[in-house]
Amino acid sequence: MGLWDIDKIEYVGRSAGVQEGLGFHYYDKNRVVAGKPMKDWLRFAVAWWHTFNQGLVDPFGDPTAIRPYYKYTDPMDQALAKVDYAFELFDKLGVEFFCFHDRDLAPEGETLRESDANLDKVVDKIEANMKDSGVKLLWNTSSLFTNRRFEAGAGTSPFADIYAYSAGQLKHSLEIGKRLGAENYVFWGGREGYENLWNTQMKREQDHMAKLFHMCVDYAHEIGMDAQFLIEPKPKEPTLHQYDYDAATTINFLRTYGLDKDFKLNLEGNHANLAMHTYQHEIRVAREAGFLGSLDANQGDKLIGWDMDEFPSDLYETTAVMWEVLAAGGIGPHGGLNFDAKPRRTSFTPEDLFRTHVVGMDSFAAGLLVAAKMHEDKFIENLQAQRYSSFDSGIGKSVEEGEASLASLENYAIDKPQSELLDSCHADHLESVKATINNYMIEALSEA
Amino acid sequence: MGLWDIDKIEYVGRSAGVQEGLGFHYYDKNRVVAGKPMKDWLRFAVAWWHTFNQGLVDPFGDPTAIRPYYKYTDPMDQALAKVDYAFELFDKLGVEFFCFHDRDLAPEGETLRESDANLDKVVDKIEANMKDSGVKLLWNTSSLFTNRRFEAGAGTSPFADIYAYSAGQLKHSLEIGKRLGAENYVFWGGREGYENLWNTQMKREQDHMAKLFHMCVDYAHEIGMDAQFLIEPKPKEPTLHQYDYDAATTINFLRTYGLDKDFKLNLEGNHANLAMHTYQHEIRVAREAGFLGSLDANQGDKLIGWDMDEFPSDLYETTAVMWEVLAAGGIGPHGGLNFDAKPRRTSFTPEDLFRTHVVGMDSFAAGLLVAAKMHEDKFIENLQAQRYSSFDSGIGKSVEEGEASLASLENYAIDKPQSELLDSCHADHLESVKATINNYMIEALSEA
Amino acid sequence: MGLWDIDKIEYVGRSAGVQEGLGFHYYDKNRVVAGKPMKDWLRFAVAWWHTFNQGLVDPFGDPTAIRPYYKYTDPMDQALAKVDYAFELFDKLGVEFFCFHDRDLAPEGETLRESDANLDKVVDKIEANMKDSGVKLLWNTSSLFTNRRFEAGAGTSPFADIYAYSAGQLKHSLEIGKRLGAENYVFWGGREGYENLWNTQMKREQDHMAKLFHMCVDYAHEIGMDAQFLIEPKPKEPTLHQYDYDAATTINFLRTYGLDKDFKLNLEGNHANLAMHTYQHEIRVAREAGFLGSLDANQGDKLIGWDMDEFPSDLYETTAVMWEVLAAGGIGPHGGLNFDAKPRRTSFTPEDLFRTHVVGMDSFAAGLLVAAKMHEDKFIENLQAQRYSSFDSGIGKSVEEGEASLASLENYAIDKPQSELLDSCHADHLESVKATINNYMIEALSEA
Amino acid sequence: MGLWDIDKIEYVGRSAGVQEGLGFHYYDKNRVVAGKPMKDWLRFAVAWWHTFNQGLVDPFGDPTAIRPYYKYTDPMDQALAKVDYAFELFDKLGVEFFCFHDRDLAPEGETLRESDANLDKVVDKIEANMKDSGVKLLWNTSSLFTNRRFEAGAGTSPFADIYAYSAGQLKHSLEIGKRLGAENYVFWGGREGYENLWNTQMKREQDHMAKLFHMCVDYAHEIGMDAQFLIEPKPKEPTLHQYDYDAATTINFLRTYGLDKDFKLNLEGNHANLAMHTYQHEIRVAREAGFLGSLDANQGDKLIGWDMDEFPSDLYETTAVMWEVLAAGGIGPHGGLNFDAKPRRTSFTPEDLFRTHVVGMDSFAAGLLVAAKMHEDKFIENLQAQRYSSFDSGIGKSVEEGEASLASLENYAIDKPQSELLDSCHADHLESVKATINNYMIEALSEA
Repeated sequence: MGLWDIDKIEYVGRSAGVQEGLGFHYYDKNRVVAGKPMKDWLRFAVAWWHTFNQGLVDPFGDPTAIRPYYKYTDPMDQALAKVDYAFELFDKLGVEFFCFHDRDLAPEGETLRESDANLDKVVDKIEANMKDSGVKLLWNTSSLFTNRRFEAGAGTSPFADIYAYSAGQLKHSLEIGKRLGAENYVFWGGREGYENLWNTQMKREQDHMAKLFHMCVDYAHEIGMDAQFLIEPKPKEPTLHQYDYDAATTINFLRTYGLDKDFKLNLEGNHANLAMHTYQHEIRVAREAGFLGSLDANQGDKLIGWDMDEFPSDLYETTAVMWEVLAAGGIGPHGGLNFDAKPRRTSFTPEDLFRTHVVGMDSFAAGLLVAAKMHEDKFIENLQAQRYSSFDSGIGKSVEEGEASLASLENYAIDKPQSELLDSCHADHLESVKATINNYMIEALSEA
Repeated sequence: MGLWDIDKIEYVGRSAGVQEGLGFHYYDKNRVVAGKPMKDWLRFAVAWWHTFNQGLVDPFGDPTAIRPYYKYTDPMDQALAKVDYAFELFDKLGVEFFCFHDRDLAPEGETLRESDANLDKVVDKIEANMKDSGVKLLWNTSSLFTNRRFEAGAGTSPFADIYAYSAGQLKHSLEIGKRLGAENYVFWGGREGYENLWNTQMKREQDHMAKLFHMCVDYAHEIGMDAQFLIEPKPKEPTLHQYDYDAATTINFLRTYGLDKDFKLNLEGNHANLAMHTYQHEIRVAREAGFLGSLDANQGDKLIGWDMDEFPSDLYETTAVMWEVLAAGGIGPHGGLNFDAKPRRTSFTPEDLFRTHVVGMDSFAAGLLVAAKMHEDKFIENLQAQRYSSFDSGIGKSVEEGEASLASLENYAIDKPQSELLDSCHADHLESVKATINNYMIEALSEA
Repeated sequence: MGLWDIDKIEYVGRSAGVQEGLGFHYYDKNRVVAGKPMKDWLRFAVAWWHTFNQGLVDPFGDPTAIRPYYKYTDPMDQALAKVDYAFELFDKLGVEFFCFHDRDLAPEGETLRESDANLDKVVDKIEANMKDSGVKLLWNTSSLFTNRRFEAGAGTSPFADIYAYSAGQLKHSLEIGKRLGAENYVFWGGREGYENLWNTQMKREQDHMAKLFHMCVDYAHEIGMDAQFLIEPKPKEPTLHQYDYDAATTINFLRTYGLDKDFKLNLEGNHANLAMHTYQHEIRVAREAGFLGSLDANQGDKLIGWDMDEFPSDLYETTAVMWEVLAAGGIGPHGGLNFDAKPRRTSFTPEDLFRTHVVGMDSFAAGLLVAAKMHEDKFIENLQAQRYSSFDSGIGKSVEEGEASLASLENYAIDKPQSELLDSCHADHLESVKATINNYMIEALSEA
Repeated sequence: MGLWDIDKIEYVGRSAGVQEGLGFHYYDKNRVVAGKPMKDWLRFAVAWWHTFNQGLVDPFGDPTAIRPYYKYTDPMDQALAKVDYAFELFDKLGVEFFCFHDRDLAPEGETLRESDANLDKVVDKIEANMKDSGVKLLWNTSSLFTNRRFEAGAGTSPFADIYAYSAGQLKHSLEIGKRLGAENYVFWGGREGYENLWNTQMKREQDHMAKLFHMCVDYAHEIGMDAQFLIEPKPKEPTLHQYDYDAATTINFLRTYGLDKDFKLNLEGNHANLAMHTYQHEIRVAREAGFLGSLDANQGDKLIGWDMDEFPSDLYETTAVMWEVLAAGGIGPHGGLNFDAKPRRTSFTPEDLFRTHVVGMDSFAAGLLVAAKMHEDKFIENLQAQRYSSFDSGIGKSVEEGEASLASLENYAIDKPQSELLDSCHADHLESVKATINNYMIEALSEA
């Protein structure tokens, strides 16, 4: 049974009954859906910080998690032991990717040099395990928010020494990314924002941040690191306001500073909700603008104002996400579904840790099946094509082809009676669209 | 095809395909589920104000709805004509109940006496139609919020004349309720609250409101009206703060003023969300306190801050609602599911009006099927029973039976080591619960 | 300069200039306002957990606070040393009250007995300091939420052992409250609620909670403890939904279980906002229902969805709070203003700790001055009296005196023309009310 | 007393007493503040739609407003009469600017040509009044959201005929803007967004919108209209999601489509809050990016989820706005403060209409006085300069001057011990900043 005392998770299908357990109902990794094996559409990744390091604390409570490697009390011992647990978990879940922050892997030392050295020891072990297992690094990132020194930001810190330190830390993170063949490199600016606008030079901070990103781009070129750079938007928490508020705001930042060729986005469902958007909205914005990079698979509660990082289970949400992914032909050039998610605090056992991953993987597999059936029928494609068809010819076409002017359009419309204008508007039947999606959900999954 | 030029809506089942249209996929009215025909669990009602009067305006836009009776331009002519359209729609949908505000039915006159007279003419026609069709009045209510005179409230108006007028209007509404055999009578206090606390004597206003409710109770007894009185909570909109904020607040009001024996609650999904609650929460609160009266079937968008009154389509929500209803043995003593819902503004055709009702009815029928399957297996019941089992015997039982004291419990616990205490806590597997509900959804509906 | 290396904070008045520093601009503790010294209206209390224990962590960051007693590394040594720092801080700020959770004072032991013993050692030292200084205990409370064992609640835990442990812990807390002469005893149910309604027997949990409260009432009588019992509402965080959602919900609970004679409320501004209420609203609800007990002085950010526990600085808010307090004749029978507040994470120095208390105290002193001037002029009282004057005679009086019926009121109103009804409605000038409050703010404080 | 039966509003100063009435306490139009007369900093404008057309409806209630020109029952008669009332109100308030939508001025005809003709008649009269009075047009705009034809958008309508109609309507609006010397021209896309993402081709809609904007730019050049083009962001309402969500999103749109040279932003406080931002944030974003165009002066309630359009009265907010304006040297190149605000529904008299404008003007005048005093002392400027001073020399300067690289910064930081890094971080004293702003408020206004 291995280190975790849990059997390998197998596909059992719907015949396993309604009760969710340690088997996949929908995720059959090599099953071909819409022309590719499920695993290649989904590219699941385990998040080191949640899956291995998260003690299940909250602001009012101590950790509750029970993890077998807590028996190692020396931080470096535990850090190294965790690598074995990690790769066994990847194998038992059948997950082929993982993600980490530098500081997830190893404790800090007294100086950056010492921290780098601690980190390198764990990275050595990870590298060996990757080689043996074939598991790949979806992305790595740098924790520039936990330590006290980042209290007022890292790349936007008002303190130049902290900025310099952050740059040094990033440099080594990029080197590790290259060494481990990271497919992407993520920047999450959890402290890059403000607590109070009165004491903040917002533009100056953003100028600094942009310079740091340019330095990263330059250094990646210098060392031949070809990971896709990604920014992960989040509107607030921990900081009152974070600059990478949502997809549109972040794209605006990238365009402003000439970084739009070098960066894409890593989007997250719970972050979308905190910005008062749906996840589908954020993905659509990024997809249509050419900035879809990768996805953090989790969910929140739209009535709750903080980041819950729940494992995804809402099939409406996973269906919408996978529909967008199918429309894009994949999750960005090198993207995957990283489980930025943790069990609830009362689901504290190792078995819960596996179960929650199974739920997340199954929910996304189910979403893929539903979305694929919708795509197969071109249900949404036809609906949209029909709705906008008046732009495919005539006056509409003249607009799309750039031949129209206010005058030509005025001339077309100026004597049309109201009744004729109203006749040109067709009803949307939005409620029926929603019901049809329900029907797809039942049909696709009852066939699964 | 009748007045509406729409065929009677029939049960077609899932064989009709995924595309939602003018047939029921799940609602098979006489099919027995959990011991009763579906129609008796659901008791659908059409809301006169939305279905017949709603022009699909919003605060920034004119009406868009197309309705065949708009050809009647005299208000009384239209009011009378609408009765025929209404009863045909009830028949075509197979809905056996309806609901109305007094002012939905007929235009106001210059005085209350004239308004009453206008109203009575329409009620005469409704009464005749009810007799012929067998359709029943789930509830009626009084509009004490639209007219200018109610700008600062009705029962909580600071102006005694308006209060008196409101009482007179209510009197006639109760008389109509009795005449038409209303099963319930609803009070929605959309103007009973405050815009600004500085100019408001909150307690004095609530005292006035309570007195008015007592007068209504007295008058109902006097005329032998036996409808169940219901209050419909809503936290805000149109007023900044409304006194009937949510279920708990309203129950507190009823208890404070000795009205708890005479009133129950009419709960609505969208109102629940505006109070930052789930619909399930509001129903649970009312059910367990013995205040579940009736339900307004609609849904909102948890990221939107106003009342959307969408037709329900979210199967998670309808499943949760129907699970509570099954647990209660029915929707209150005389309750039903009133569609306090309107098509989106771009779904403006008569056909959309029928389609949206079909979506709402089907979504609730589907929710009933899922919940019934869960009940059949006692999935939730067993989960809960197991979770609380330590209160079924031993020290837990001594608590429930009222035999425990701080001293007896201290004595029990004072020397227990932390490890033993932690062992008494079992993990919740909340994510697996969610996944199991997904599985029930697919199983129950794929069998439908 | 003492342990803290900070001078005693003195009243310096507005002559000190605009820059806020370590002196009071408005708080002149013995100045008589509305018939009582400022300090007796305000009864400021320091919260042990925030002021002494809070390391200024957040869910994404390590502690930042610098505190002189961190040099004590043994937990009991530090706990005992902190007592000296605490009483010196009280003295330097001129604060006469404090508040604590049991677990703020001393570390837990392996059993409840050992935890009690650790606690008693620190309480001994506190008792001695109280005697010497004259500083009093506004309230104490029991932490039934931090330790892992409370992951699923304490009084509402599904696990009887945890319930028993909680009762034992409460017993000792009540004994300490009696010993230290606590004026109030607070219950905050941060884990008393649910994460998921599906696995929760809500009523059974609330029954258990009520039984526990009754045991506490009984035990307080038994030992002759006469502190006022208070419940502190909070709608959510850490738990998804907490039963003591807001003032109205909590009063409903107390009435349901016959606890309304023995409990009042401890209200908090930030908690009010999380329940989508203003602080003024919550205080008004409690005051008019006779449940105003005590106040937690802090503020949040209405655009942020978690508890920020900022020191209060918004003069609109402090004015509104103090207006209600003046209307009530005081903050409940034994209430005070407890600073349930912490410096921002970037205000980490000991000096910041003092500065933030000065800001909070000054802001409330300013609010008192403004509210007192408003009361002196009876600005709000007159506005309200005039607004509701139609209930002082005639038909309105018949309502208030219980002589009216639907019939008598209908008779009064039935032939009134619309124009006459509209004439009875007077305009509210709400914007002018707001501007007048601005004017009071400037006048009252420019005279200060 | 004129048409309105209200005297001209005069500056009375604080000697008028605390009670707000029909005189300015702070707004002394020619008083020089920060080098310019108050009126030139503030450039107040009256919004035709709210001030003259708003009946004070809400989604649940009929109009309450009493306006003297309601005696004109023919729509064109009323439209023409209103012009006289408008210019008298401007004069009595001492307001020198106004704003309007085309459809505010005159009723629509059966065709666009007829609507244009109706409009031109009213514009003739307005032009004459402008000449006589010297009152100027801050901006005009086109209502592309009220009529049924815009149910699914105007520039983003899926129906080409509606798009063409919109273009024609815009053409005439631009001509009117030119004729009346509009200083700006505003686009508010209240229907440019989606109700449901499934049926929406978001990018195609935005492409259409951008083309329309380009046509407007071209036509303005063609006719020699030099008004500054402005987009007014709003995140939602009436539409579920609007594309011009907030400042950053709108700037991103402008940059994407090469419109950033031709457009700036018109920002509104209530819209900022609906996007979960402060007004200060939105202004800062626009100001620092060079997109500050003009301001809509109003306020909402951060606990309410819809657009309230209250007249501004919160001095914290007006201070923050005016601080940004002072920092920018003015409200955009041609901007002003347009009162996109209406009295509450219970403030329905003509006198209320004047009072509410007085409150709004006074609140902004007060904000200007406070902000000017803060600027005079360079309170915020110094605070910020000091906070970021480590970037003025040494390693920080090397960053700002583009000389740094990851390697140079790593080299600088790699051996710095944690204690040295922490020493480089200075505490923010954020609470004291807030208290100091309170002090400025009292000082500046007590001197007023």
